[in-house]
Amino acid sequence: MARLNDHYLKLAAGYLFPEISRRVGEFADANPKANLIKLGIGDVVLPLASSVRQAMHDAIDEMATAEGFRGYGPSEGYDFLREAIVQNDFASRGVQIDPSEVYASDGSKCDSANIQEIFATDATLAVTDPVYPVYVDTNVMAGRTGGADSGGRYARIEYLPCTEENSFLPALPERPVDLVYLCSPNNPTGVVTPRDELQKWVDWARANDAIILFDAAYERFISEDLPHSIFEIDGARECAIEFRSFSKTAGFTGIRCAYIVIPEELKGRGSNGEQASVAQLWRRRTNTKFNGISYPVQRGAEAIYSEEGRKEVQANIDYYTANAGLILEGLSKAGLKTFGGVNAPYVWLKTPDGLDSWQFFDQLLERANVVGTPGSGFGAHGEGYFRLSAFGLREQVEEAIDRIAKNLG
Amino acid sequence: MARLNDHYLKLAAGYLFPEISRRVGEFADANPKANLIKLGIGDVVLPLASSVRQAMHDAIDEMATAEGFRGYGPSEGYDFLREAIVQNDFASRGVQIDPSEVYASDGSKCDSANIQEIFATDATLAVTDPVYPVYVDTNVMAGRTGGADSGGRYARIEYLPCTEENSFLPALPERPVDLVYLCSPNNPTGVVTPRDELQKWVDWARANDAIILFDAAYERFISEDLPHSIFEIDGARECAIEFRSFSKTAGFTGIRCAYIVIPEELKGRGSNGEQASVAQLWRRRTNTKFNGISYPVQRGAEAIYSEEGRKEVQANIDYYTANAGLILEGLSKAGLKTFGGVNAPYVWLKTPDGLDSWQFFDQLLERANVVGTPGSGFGAHGEGYFRLSAFGLREQVEEAIDRIAKNLG
Repeated sequence: MARLNDHYLKLAAGYLFPEISRRVGEFADANPKANLIKLGIGDVVLPLASSVRQAMHDAIDEMATAEGFRGYGPSEGYDFLREAIVQNDFASRGVQIDPSEVYASDGSKCDSANIQEIFATDATLAVTDPVYPVYVDTNVMAGRTGGADSGGRYARIEYLPCTEENSFLPALPERPVDLVYLCSPNNPTGVVTPRDELQKWVDWARANDAIILFDAAYERFISEDLPHSIFEIDGARECAIEFRSFSKTAGFTGIRCAYIVIPEELKGRGSNGEQASVAQLWRRRTNTKFNGISYPVQRGAEAIYSEEGRKEVQANIDYYTANAGLILEGLSKAGLKTFGGVNAPYVWLKTPDGLDSWQFFDQLLERANVVGTPGSGFGAHGEGYFRLSAFGLREQVEEAIDRIAKNLG
Repeated sequence: MARLNDHYLKLAAGYLFPEISRRVGEFADANPKANLIKLGIGDVVLPLASSVRQAMHDAIDEMATAEGFRGYGPSEGYDFLREAIVQNDFASRGVQIDPSEVYASDGSKCDSANIQEIFATDATLAVTDPVYPVYVDTNVMAGRTGGADSGGRYARIEYLPCTEENSFLPALPERPVDLVYLCSPNNPTGVVTPRDELQKWVDWARANDAIILFDAAYERFISEDLPHSIFEIDGARECAIEFRSFSKTAGFTGIRCAYIVIPEELKGRGSNGEQASVAQLWRRRTNTKFNGISYPVQRGAEAIYSEEGRKEVQANIDYYTANAGLILEGLSKAGLKTFGGVNAPYVWLKTPDGLDSWQFFDQLLERANVVGTPGSGFGAHGEGYFRLSAFGLREQVEEAIDRIAKNLG
């Protein structure tokens, strides 16, 4: 019988969100009249921006003509998109990125899942705790870890606790590691890493020959004076890769587009000690395993950077940010302790009365018919915390806060 | 310095098609007036079908409304697409596949590249020779092989020669292997595996506990009475996975949609000897590393199965098949020996005058300004052969044949 990848069997539990779906499904079956409000998975709700809609229509019409038809595109993305990205997301903030250093993809989940493939199977890694589960699970599946302990922590991963005491800003790893995953604005805590902290990370990475995998999928939500990109930090080009996403800006969770930035200076080494370009390995992966993203989708993503597109994106961000403000205010009034939610679309709350995260999940579901995400699903140090997402319709957010105040306050 | 995946360094050469692009680019720079005709990479040229165009427009408009907006879809694809697939591609041929056994993706290249991840790193494999390079390269990158010899053959892969002598139908492996990749209609030879041969493979796989990874991306081009799916063969549900693509039917190379079928009966085993479901591992991979494909793309793919869509697809297939017929006829007149091209969009030709494949590539490029694909790029037994694709505009195919007759005949 064909031999399977055993490492999959090490995975401690089903991926978090399917487990939530299962519990919600059971509740909905048992309570068919309940009007559930979902502030869990972090999916956007506002309709597709009209600039994006128009650009996608145009691209489809173009492809339906003999002259305009396009077949295989570049696996790394079309130049028009890569150029719009560097101009608008980087040059505008004084960061020099070459379009050839940008690789368009079908999602940040995919990118942050696939990036580990180009590193050695025995490369060591550090992650924050709590953490977006994809970073950990994909390394488990690749055989880069041992088994999980009773708390769901895998051997050979260094976990960096993010707690109330350290303001959810992790300490540097105690041992040298090859890779460290950082996410800012953070999913799930909603905390942004300030400039001086980020500089500490970059200095540490360069001193320790580590690579920082920097997930900035939520950078558009930063409203205060904080770094949007790790490449705003001196020396980051020698030690960092950045992930960006269109999912939460112009509502691309169902359209699928994201990108990754790998500076040409970034080097790793083979087991013979020789240096090699990280970008070159990524290009090889991209060309061998991927055929680029849908042309109409790339035109849609480009339109986000048009004058109209920028306004529409900003309006979406403002809408969700106002939701986050309402959630923060409502939870505080209900006597709950909250974090994040100012420069991020996520509010991280401390569960009341010593409830654990899944107990609070069930209580919130049963008493308020509101769905959130248990903090323990993001790691051992997420236990006793809970994530609410600001990606709801305004009236749903208001109703959810109202129900929480009435039934859990 | 972060440790890289060394296995990438074993890759014998750049991925075939970028190397062709490089040579063509050099030729075009040196000969700016040359009117190149590309029958190399196998990219379609006919415009997007109007049924697909309309369905994609509708989906985009739907997403631009508050009620119709869709965010994250199911990672495995929407039910409407999975149901259309099983009805039209399988039930219509008497094959029972459940919609839940179908996993929609952004391309067969991606699927056939990713599938190896769910098998053990020390799983053994057999491939035909010549072969689509992605099957081999992705296993090299995953560390499942040794280094390459001077002929580009990797240690720990069993190569199954496809030669004129065996009518390009490979013998069964001599040793047991965990995985075997078969492609029918074959890329690059254009040969379809007949029913009795496929039954032999299924019987062998079941007797030897192997899994057949069956690539049927070109099945729509079968015009004779030959199997379109391995699941037409008794016992295949216990030993096979199938890949299908929309790329070459309704011109989806730039739209990106494909699917994979994994029967629920299919089992592998862990190193502890216990059986596990292959589909379950694939679902775990899909949910952890992928977020599904663009909703408008899935609606576009669904439209291929509408009454209008079916007619449009058939018209495209007929057009390309007629091209293949012209190529076969023209090459024969020019005194070249040909294979395939009847039930497949590829013509496989024997290079004349003892030229090797790249010599013929250069000669064809220089004398006829026609771009094809060197057989040696597909493996050692492809040496001395050459692939021409039928995916051109009619007038280009006619012109290419004319030039070949005049300049190489």
